[in-house]
Amino acid sequence: MKTNRLEAFSDGVLAIIITIMVLELKAPEEISIESLLPLLPIFISYFISFVYLGIYWNNHHHLFQIAEKVNGKVLWANLNLLFWLSLIPFATSWVGENHLESGPIAFYGFILLMSAVAYFILQTVIIHYHDDNFPLRKIIGKNLKGKISTVLYLVGLILSFINSWMAVLCYIIVAIIWIVPEKKIEQNIKE
Amino acid sequence: MKTNRLEAFSDGVLAIIITIMVLELKAPEEISIESLLPLLPIFISYFISFVYLGIYWNNHHHLFQIAEKVNGKVLWANLNLLFWLSLIPFATSWVGENHLESGPIAFYGFILLMSAVAYFILQTVIIHYHDDNFPLRKIIGKNLKGKISTVLYLVGLILSFINSWMAVLCYIIVAIIWIVPEKKIEQNIKE
Amino acid sequence: MKTNRLEAFSDGVLAIIITIMVLELKAPEEISIESLLPLLPIFISYFISFVYLGIYWNNHHHLFQIAEKVNGKVLWANLNLLFWLSLIPFATSWVGENHLESGPIAFYGFILLMSAVAYFILQTVIIHYHDDNFPLRKIIGKNLKGKISTVLYLVGLILSFINSWMAVLCYIIVAIIWIVPEKKIEQNIKE
Amino acid sequence: MKTNRLEAFSDGVLAIIITIMVLELKAPEEISIESLLPLLPIFISYFISFVYLGIYWNNHHHLFQIAEKVNGKVLWANLNLLFWLSLIPFATSWVGENHLESGPIAFYGFILLMSAVAYFILQTVIIHYHDDNFPLRKIIGKNLKGKISTVLYLVGLILSFINSWMAVLCYIIVAIIWIVPEKKIEQNIKE
Repeated sequence: MKTNRLEAFSDGVLAIIITIMVLELKAPEEISIESLLPLLPIFISYFISFVYLGIYWNNHHHLFQIAEKVNGKVLWANLNLLFWLSLIPFATSWVGENHLESGPIAFYGFILLMSAVAYFILQTVIIHYHDDNFPLRKIIGKNLKGKISTVLYLVGLILSFINSWMAVLCYIIVAIIWIVPEKKIEQNIKE
Repeated sequence: MKTNRLEAFSDGVLAIIITIMVLELKAPEEISIESLLPLLPIFISYFISFVYLGIYWNNHHHLFQIAEKVNGKVLWANLNLLFWLSLIPFATSWVGENHLESGPIAFYGFILLMSAVAYFILQTVIIHYHDDNFPLRKIIGKNLKGKISTVLYLVGLILSFINSWMAVLCYIIVAIIWIVPEKKIEQNIKE
Repeated sequence: MKTNRLEAFSDGVLAIIITIMVLELKAPEEISIESLLPLLPIFISYFISFVYLGIYWNNHHHLFQIAEKVNGKVLWANLNLLFWLSLIPFATSWVGENHLESGPIAFYGFILLMSAVAYFILQTVIIHYHDDNFPLRKIIGKNLKGKISTVLYLVGLILSFINSWMAVLCYIIVAIIWIVPEKKIEQNIKE
Repeated sequence: MKTNRLEAFSDGVLAIIITIMVLELKAPEEISIESLLPLLPIFISYFISFVYLGIYWNNHHHLFQIAEKVNGKVLWANLNLLFWLSLIPFATSWVGENHLESGPIAFYGFILLMSAVAYFILQTVIIHYHDDNFPLRKIIGKNLKGKISTVLYLVGLILSFINSWMAVLCYIIVAIIWIVPEKKIEQNIKE
């Protein structure tokens, strides 16, 4: 089966997830520009989650540019990823309302970790379904990026109970690692 | 007429239905990880409905991979299915807030039953619109899965007034029956 | 320019409009099946609006199956239609909470009227942009359905201040006229 | 990489942004037509934002009709545009509840300015990624429309602290400049 409808459905779900977070931003009752200041933590957590979901969309987009076909297993692996990503608005709203408390920050890290695991499963299921010459196999190789991210999320999760800032730092490092989608995929498509 | 726009619209509606359920998960006011515990029933009912809608999306996807054309009747049969599925978030939220009370569980089963009937009608309308060699005709055959599901939903509906756990068990059995989309459709497309 | 992206955007907007109405259905706090009864008017107004939006989607779908190209004017005529349709959830919620009071029923009729006018404008702009052999020209002809609908909406609007039931009857007659999308378009596509 | 999925995702996000604004319109508790009057400012700000988002969608549509390919940079430039546009519902709701107070009007202008800058960046990134014969290069030329808009937004932003009406006038002039999408793009596609 072709990949186009899986992409369309994922685009729809990701578009909604990325947009409903903005519903948390309630217009202040006052009219001064300063009355926006208390919204700053909610705004920042919205921005970070937007970037995270943007990263997932970009990498998902690259992944399915190179995948040629899907089956029932790929559909479910994809739904699993979308499920964990759909919890990001909830985690974002909890973080946004409580600044850098360890509980929300640890939970946010847990959702990011589960999303990363789901992405790894999706990648693996796609590779298994294609034959040995499937270019993604070489491109991912030992999946160094995936492994480093998992470790960083785990470290962040533990650190969140000691120092929230260091946990956030871990999460941001993972974001930076993934912000540029796999260039080898673009090269492969060009060839 | 081609099937692509019907698929796009259904993807949009299903993507929204599956995602707005997450709006029920309100961030707790407290900051401890334990403060997430009271949300567990809402979270579980969200998870089960997510799986159910995922099953419908997967089977809908398979159905329209094999359908070749649509007419006005198919469009309306599809809208009928989307209507019943659109009530799942409402039923989910009622179940989530009241755990395993018989009223919400029976209502949830009723919506699932009506969705199953709507799916059966959609299938039938599609088969009627295609000629005798249409492969779906053979694949579905006597529609055993459809009939068993309907019976299980009815049994579940009645049981919900006696023992909620047994009703939920019935619903879960139906989910398991459908979680693997019809493999014969994948084989047929391959050929 | 091709029609595909206009269709995709319209599908997205219509999918959201048709689905957000369900957010008005709040789960009751009680757990008996009877506690759903007070929601019945909201449910019925949701059902009617769902059918209305389904009719628009079906006819829009047929319209753009036959249209071959779009320009800036068509894009704006389409956005105008989507604007009026986007007010249906608001009108629905007002009707649903106040049963058959004349104010909400008249307002609902006004939104339906403006949507019908917007659909007529869209049709006209599309026909103007195509050449004389454009099949839609013949199919619509004197646009009898459009004219009757406009008159019925106006009559309904006025009647809503006298007898709400008769106003609702007018709106339902228009729905019945349009529920079967133009069969001539399907025939034309087949040829 | 092809442009189709970027378009689909953007269509999804824009469809949601344009539609969730309508959730601000809460049905009045009273039943007289006059009870809609207090909603007028919210309605007008919804209308203006709908037109603005329509303008962006139209121009985005034209832009990607002429763009032939995308890379990671284009994806991020597009996400940046969607981020700023996603804040329009928030700004709209603040303006709608406070009529023409300088704070909300200035903030609204700031979001429009950032969106315009994001659109300019997106255009630039697309042009850089294509070769010298890329027709968009000539069509945009010195980007007079973009420069005038930026100046008008800045002027509006400053004026909003002196006279809100004049600020709104500036924003409306920009809208008028962009309401007709670049005709040269349509001509170029025709050729």
